[in-house]
Amino acid sequence: MPTTPRFELFSFWRTSATYRVRVALNFKGLEAHERNVDLDAGEQRSKEFLAVNPLGAIPALIDHEMSADSAPITQSLAILEYLEEVKPTPALLPKDSYGRARVRAIAAMLASDTHPLITPRVKKYLTTTGGFDAAAWKAWQGHWFTTGLQAVEAKLSHDSQTGRFAHGDAPTIADICIASILAVTPIFGIEVADIPTVNRIVAECEKVEAFAKAAPKRQVGAPTE
Amino acid sequence: MPTTPRFELFSFWRTSATYRVRVALNFKGLEAHERNVDLDAGEQRSKEFLAVNPLGAIPALIDHEMSADSAPITQSLAILEYLEEVKPTPALLPKDSYGRARVRAIAAMLASDTHPLITPRVKKYLTTTGGFDAAAWKAWQGHWFTTGLQAVEAKLSHDSQTGRFAHGDAPTIADICIASILAVTPIFGIEVADIPTVNRIVAECEKVEAFAKAAPKRQVGAPTE
Repeated sequence: MPTTPRFELFSFWRTSATYRVRVALNFKGLEAHERNVDLDAGEQRSKEFLAVNPLGAIPALIDHEMSADSAPITQSLAILEYLEEVKPTPALLPKDSYGRARVRAIAAMLASDTHPLITPRVKKYLTTTGGFDAAAWKAWQGHWFTTGLQAVEAKLSHDSQTGRFAHGDAPTIADICIASILAVTPIFGIEVADIPTVNRIVAECEKVEAFAKAAPKRQVGAPTE
Repeated sequence: MPTTPRFELFSFWRTSATYRVRVALNFKGLEAHERNVDLDAGEQRSKEFLAVNPLGAIPALIDHEMSADSAPITQSLAILEYLEEVKPTPALLPKDSYGRARVRAIAAMLASDTHPLITPRVKKYLTTTGGFDAAAWKAWQGHWFTTGLQAVEAKLSHDSQTGRFAHGDAPTIADICIASILAVTPIFGIEVADIPTVNRIVAECEKVEAFAKAAPKRQVGAPTE
């Protein structure tokens, strides 16, 4: 008889932030039941979903081992830290505080300072109130993906701690965030130049089953071609 | 004879992200030598500073106890986590993993999903390439501050874990991020309506010396009136 998974994940096939949580769950061997929130249909702004996350954004995670009055956990980086705490092995953060800070900083360069600029709610504002046409929106997307990824490239190519992955030779939350951006740029038709270290690391990530299985096109709801 | 402080902080009087680090340092009784990066003069884009942070953003922190080949730690939330690890008491995160996740999520609602939208580099893009005039930029600022703070308000007023502060009765990283936004909205002439719980918590924060001392107007470089 199938058991109910411990986790429930509010998700959508395409989003970068959901991808991060999927990789971490896969990497740690944790199972989640996914509940689809159709961003194209605007379900993230439904009254039902706003009760899950008042910001109207996915992912959101329920751990059935939390107490009954615990609201779902939101924000991809907060979810990754939570999973790291409740299932520390295999680890997604280094053991030393400096290494952890470096990994968290690289993650935030993309999850905080890049991705929030190209979310659906920003698109909605810029293409209505902001007066952006499709070309202006695409230029905006390209500008911020390029800014964020080239800054990460500069850091990775400079720092001696960079290895096979962003920090040493095992994947961390930094790699998850890097791969999460490159997982969606092709969907938007964006190509970022001059990021050889980033591209090398993403190629390493794709060899890891936890990352490969999380690819947007392999999710329920993805277009079939 | 004065000793050299353990920490060096690249900072500017006005910024929300630097404020967060100042509060945490004050709260934990840690001393930092501040190195001013004049954002109004564009010093964050100088070659010298880009070597510190390729994203051209402050804050950045050097811990003189790190090894010599360690690049400065960037990203305010990564710095806060680092300070929490190297000086755990007094704590800025709850002890339980769910509580920590909730605090990190509230922090990220503002530090990741709100503040990056109103930074100087976004202003630069929107008011040049983006064609925004001063009124359009101010409307943009108001929109995202309102969206982020009202979402935090909805969460705080809903969750049973909210206490005197955002999570229980002691300040956490969540309160630091909330106060960091309200520390700068008056500078921008922005007032956000319908956030009574947020305002109540910020008033509590202001009673705590670690927060009060970090106020932008009390920093070196602030306008004298």
